[in-house]
Amino acid sequence: MVKAGSTEESNLAVKSDMMEKIVSLCKRRGFIFQSSEIYGGINSIYDYGPLGVELKNNVKREWWKEMVQQRHNIVGLDSGILMHPKIWEASGHLAGFSDPLVDCKKCKKRFRADHLLEAKGLKPDFRQTPFSKYKVKCPECGGELTDIRDFNLMFKTFMGALEDSASQIYLRPETAQGIYVNFENVYNASRQKIPFGIAQVGKAFRNEITPGNFTFRTREFEQMEMQFFVREAEAKKWFDYWKTERYNWYLSFGVNRGKLKLREHAKNELAHYAKAALDIEYDFPFADKELEGIHNRGDFDLSRHQEFSGKELKAADEAGQKFTPHIIETSSGADRATLMFLVDAYTEVETRSGDKDAKHEIEVVLKLDKRLAPIKVAILPLSKKLDNGAVKVYDDLKSSYQCQYDVTGAIGRRYRRQDEIGTPYCVTYDFESETDKQVTVRDRDSMNQDRVAIAELKDYFREKFC
Amino acid sequence: MVKAGSTEESNLAVKSDMMEKIVSLCKRRGFIFQSSEIYGGINSIYDYGPLGVELKNNVKREWWKEMVQQRHNIVGLDSGILMHPKIWEASGHLAGFSDPLVDCKKCKKRFRADHLLEAKGLKPDFRQTPFSKYKVKCPECGGELTDIRDFNLMFKTFMGALEDSASQIYLRPETAQGIYVNFENVYNASRQKIPFGIAQVGKAFRNEITPGNFTFRTREFEQMEMQFFVREAEAKKWFDYWKTERYNWYLSFGVNRGKLKLREHAKNELAHYAKAALDIEYDFPFADKELEGIHNRGDFDLSRHQEFSGKELKAADEAGQKFTPHIIETSSGADRATLMFLVDAYTEVETRSGDKDAKHEIEVVLKLDKRLAPIKVAILPLSKKLDNGAVKVYDDLKSSYQCQYDVTGAIGRRYRRQDEIGTPYCVTYDFESETDKQVTVRDRDSMNQDRVAIAELKDYFREKFC
Repeated sequence: MVKAGSTEESNLAVKSDMMEKIVSLCKRRGFIFQSSEIYGGINSIYDYGPLGVELKNNVKREWWKEMVQQRHNIVGLDSGILMHPKIWEASGHLAGFSDPLVDCKKCKKRFRADHLLEAKGLKPDFRQTPFSKYKVKCPECGGELTDIRDFNLMFKTFMGALEDSASQIYLRPETAQGIYVNFENVYNASRQKIPFGIAQVGKAFRNEITPGNFTFRTREFEQMEMQFFVREAEAKKWFDYWKTERYNWYLSFGVNRGKLKLREHAKNELAHYAKAALDIEYDFPFADKELEGIHNRGDFDLSRHQEFSGKELKAADEAGQKFTPHIIETSSGADRATLMFLVDAYTEVETRSGDKDAKHEIEVVLKLDKRLAPIKVAILPLSKKLDNGAVKVYDDLKSSYQCQYDVTGAIGRRYRRQDEIGTPYCVTYDFESETDKQVTVRDRDSMNQDRVAIAELKDYFREKFC
Repeated sequence: MVKAGSTEESNLAVKSDMMEKIVSLCKRRGFIFQSSEIYGGINSIYDYGPLGVELKNNVKREWWKEMVQQRHNIVGLDSGILMHPKIWEASGHLAGFSDPLVDCKKCKKRFRADHLLEAKGLKPDFRQTPFSKYKVKCPECGGELTDIRDFNLMFKTFMGALEDSASQIYLRPETAQGIYVNFENVYNASRQKIPFGIAQVGKAFRNEITPGNFTFRTREFEQMEMQFFVREAEAKKWFDYWKTERYNWYLSFGVNRGKLKLREHAKNELAHYAKAALDIEYDFPFADKELEGIHNRGDFDLSRHQEFSGKELKAADEAGQKFTPHIIETSSGADRATLMFLVDAYTEVETRSGDKDAKHEIEVVLKLDKRLAPIKVAILPLSKKLDNGAVKVYDDLKSSYQCQYDVTGAIGRRYRRQDEIGTPYCVTYDFESETDKQVTVRDRDSMNQDRVAIAELKDYFREKFC
């Protein structure tokens, strides 16, 4: 294992080096590419390549399995990205989901006012003190700055053939509102009783002024959100329950416990709708950053949508008494989780694959949980002459698992390629396989090799992946 | 079975009746809701409810399994919805992806010029004859109409903090371009050789002037597209190959063969990029409509992106000679496929479930293929007193299948509920189950009942779902 230096400085160097390595691996092996790269890229949008889409799909599928399939009291939903604009009035996004921007009157550059002040060590409160009082100049040219203009982070667009404010709509900045406005329909159709939850995976868009850190903060991203509807008296209990459940979910994939943190928000940090909030953070190479938020939203959301739509959004208790449920939300990022699993799995080891052509003595092993690994099994015939038999093994496994067939290069090199993308098992088909009808299965982590009868291979893997 | 009348007219009535029944079932049981319904809805956007999201996810997953997982020569991709605007110049969408609109000078209403003429039985060609020559008046007020204005169907939005044309971007109107611009990155990272394909599932957006037919044509929709890169000389062969493969895919789910049609485009129907095109159509209640298009796009796409980006998008043959691959595209709609599977599965039968409370003598059975059914197994304890044992059965199956636990109402009624949503198997846990440790498994289609040992239930279903 490569060890970080003992001083904080060398730690930082190792960490920034780490992100570079991961970004480079992602491009080289086809996990993540910069979007529109041949056109010079588009700021802070990323495309998932052949391995990335498998990894991210696995993350989303495991979340769905955990949150929907295995729970009798949670159902799924998939609402539109484009919704009625009134929804964003009710939610508070139209009025409040904005960044404070200032322009330089001289060079016309634009800045976030809060960032300018934070760079000077100030913690601004624009509600208390107008920006002009801080007497800040343009950091680029020293010119005078305008007063603050609130810049809404929602992407707007126009629906229908007329481009006026009547048809102005927004790309959703979160999936949660799609759940709230469907509450009554889902409640009636699913025959659930309080407490129950509605879960959704889907894209959201925020016109961030300062996106960054690879796929951590992007303008187009995917959320995995669950809204759990409860009685007010039980809100605290369910908040605590979901905190533990969600924290343990990450641990269940073998994520380094020392890097996974719970951070309770102080009262003055809470959003306008929140009664309590907690972040599950991961110690990313660039900082401790939020993976997921658990929020006690009270009855804010359903009350507001009742008020703005004039429709009743209530549940009934056993006596038939109607009430507005309170909401505990678990809101996580699919891109953030995917990046975290990549970072956490990234391991450098001394040469072990037997790759004689390796240029470095260090090899990369991506120790992804089996359920997340993009390729589950690689089939490696020792020679092209063995294609016939080896292809049969591949064909037999491909209906159950995402497999890869690789016949190119020395076997050590092929092991190294699979280690680098996190493939848990390599099946080697050798000359003996032709006669003894057995193959060698190599385990990525233990490097143990099992000799397994081809006829029993499906059962062998069913046990490994169950 | 309810039979359609013998005249064409009564056929049409039955068909329109059929769509009403499906829309109503979708809302009542939680397959599909109108988006933003509590705010009066938003034209032509739909939300998938608890059962709909499972069904649509199953459709997408089966497509991915068929097109990516089980094919060594196709890899996946997940590119952004927001891309560099130059891409839409290169693709021709900025110039040509538009509808011809006219406004009434008097009442200010807006119409599609081609629709106005088609309503008069004319097949207009505006390149040959200007609109004014047709002497059409406003169909609403008889007023004079303006000349044609081309209305681009792409939704536009603005990225970054400045709202000017420099930052104007578009929501992608198709996923295909995301594949073309990533060709070189995927080709290099995946170590594939020509011929090979790149597959993608994702949302696309078109500001349709006349959407309609429930989820068939919507402004926000999801595509399942695969682009297969081939040598020019082999394009015809692969076009024919994919035509057969894709047609058979729908048949593999038991879709009514008589309703699934292949329609080759005439030369004058072809899009500017297409050398040959073919639709797979389904006989929907509203008309024969396209489910999927198979297109021979020639080298148009990669050539244009090479020209506009200045980057080489080529493959090499075995001699190292570089060439621009030709493309065979299979482009299908996830929402259309989902709607088609619902329509095709919808069956009315005479009372059979034994539901004594049924108001009608007709019951609905959704004969969905097992792989597509939203709920795979329902667990139905005969009495609430049996909860303990029945919940154990549910808990044992839920890690493998999306299950539903239903304890409410007479057993006949519960069968009917499951038939209506297409659940292939109902497991009844009765008083005998407590002692003989067996349950009764009812098959949706044959209505056969098997008595199965609880200990063997997992194996029993593994065989059923394999």
